Amino acid sequence: MSVVGESYLVGLVGEGVRPSLTPPLHEREADRNGLRYLYRPLDLLALGRPAADLDTTIGRLLGAAVDLGFSALNITHPCKQLVLSHLDEVSPSAAAIGSVNTVLFADGRRIGHNTDVTGFASALRDGLPGAGLDDVVVIGAGGAGAAVTCALLEAGASRLTVADLDEERAGALADSLAARFPEAAVAGASSDALAARLKDRERTVTGLVNASFVGMHTHPGIPLEPTLLRPEVWVADIVYRPIGTELVRAARATGCRTLDGGGMAVGQAADAFQLITGVEPDRERMRDHFFEMVEEGR
Amino acid sequence: MSVVGESYLVGLVGEGVRPSLTPPLHEREADRNGLRYLYRPLDLLALGRPAADLDTTIGRLLGAAVDLGFSALNITHPCKQLVLSHLDEVSPSAAAIGSVNTVLFADGRRIGHNTDVTGFASALRDGLPGAGLDDVVVIGAGGAGAAVTCALLEAGASRLTVADLDEERAGALADSLAARFPEAAVAGASSDALAARLKDRERTVTGLVNASFVGMHTHPGIPLEPTLLRPEVWVADIVYRPIGTELVRAARATGCRTLDGGGMAVGQAADAFQLITGVEPDRERMRDHFFEMVEEGR
Repeated sequence: MSVVGESYLVGLVGEGVRPSLTPPLHEREADRNGLRYLYRPLDLLALGRPAADLDTTIGRLLGAAVDLGFSALNITHPCKQLVLSHLDEVSPSAAAIGSVNTVLFADGRRIGHNTDVTGFASALRDGLPGAGLDDVVVIGAGGAGAAVTCALLEAGASRLTVADLDEERAGALADSLAARFPEAAVAGASSDALAARLKDRERTVTGLVNASFVGMHTHPGIPLEPTLLRPEVWVADIVYRPIGTELVRAARATGCRTLDGGGMAVGQAADAFQLITGVEPDRERMRDHFFEMVEEGR
Repeated sequence: MSVVGESYLVGLVGEGVRPSLTPPLHEREADRNGLRYLYRPLDLLALGRPAADLDTTIGRLLGAAVDLGFSALNITHPCKQLVLSHLDEVSPSAAAIGSVNTVLFADGRRIGHNTDVTGFASALRDGLPGAGLDDVVVIGAGGAGAAVTCALLEAGASRLTVADLDEERAGALADSLAARFPEAAVAGASSDALAARLKDRERTVTGLVNASFVGMHTHPGIPLEPTLLRPEVWVADIVYRPIGTELVRAARATGCRTLDGGGMAVGQAADAFQLITGVEPDRERMRDHFFEMVEEGR
């Protein structure tokens, strides 16, 4: 092998990111394209700094990444919104959802993007073709929730409910979405209201998405009472470690059509790769690699 | 190509390091060994911080490199001595010359090494076989000067004069060498004393090494009056950008045997590569690559 020309140094900033599959996904796709590429997971927990100091830590990490020659950073939980105040410029779509998962460093500037929206959109299109979008419920109003709701409304969802343990956060996201998508009916909901909504036999929910971190290896559990699931409701999860979350398993057991977190994980990685390198990746090849790693139990 | 397993992220910290040939030397040798390897030049001048703040800057860069997943840093002018106070551990040979050009990050510790000594030793052995070491003059008592004098004394030099514009610095290095190599006669000298020493027809100098940065693209010039050269004195330069320094060209014109900076550059890089990866590099291949780049005018 001979790699010439520009090389790419990328990091993933977040809590518990060591086992992330995104770094090997990027690296192998770069290899296939003959690009020198190194992708380091940068675990905030391993830095051993108090969570209260997170904003300072993010600012310092971004400055250090520029000084040490990084091309870009991917940003994940719990920093996708916090990172905004440390950027020089934000792409319109990332600004609209107030969440950034990719920061490019170019010409001394820090430019924020969000590839979660496009990542979830393509996952939904490919993984659940024809999924009914008349009335969708999304659990989680954080950075991923903002991306998923945006993708659903852009794909034509006519009614959307955002639920969050923090009802105020759910309401704020719903208000912002309602302003941007005036033709859709968007509402925030508490966890209790979510249960009522799912039990409603008059105005039935067509699909449900978990966009919270509940179900991750580091946050095990299920984001709603499994008895609330019904076979006619499609269920999507954005958590991909493990790929078979409690929610996905309960939904399958109920007879629902399901979409696991793999599609969005590959979609956001492919879009970030393209932003960083300017090279269109082979998405099918990245998807194969992703499931190969999942099967290996990585 | 498929790269698996551990990957290596390395930086070169110093002033004006952007055009250094060390990063591509490491990277291509890593490619040949199937290792994922990315080597970034980190130019202190590009950081735009005041020189007075250099010690703080170095400390901050080392901390940032640990946080951002670097495997190691190479250190060059003007930080090889300054870096010492930011390390947890220093190898005996680096400690002896008070100069570090390689910092390994392992298990949360920062460990300093110096591969300039071994790099110059092998360059001298291979490039000037049989060079007389009875009476050698070294110009420059900084980090490189400490390495070169150590290599010469270890190779058996019986008399050695260290000259520096800063006579006190030359004296201090000479004293430290005299203590470590009691069988040799080591003395410090001012620039004026150096001229007298080279004109001395009684006790003739056998070889001369430039270990100062004079002659580099960024510091053009020649470190001594060319008329002081004589054909029977071998002349070595450690500057390799350009490979044909004013000193090397003047020495060739005088009829001296010469050794350019390429040998030491390749030697220190090969030794650092081995420390970082644990893999023995193909030194002949690295040397070929080095001269290929030099011929391309890189």
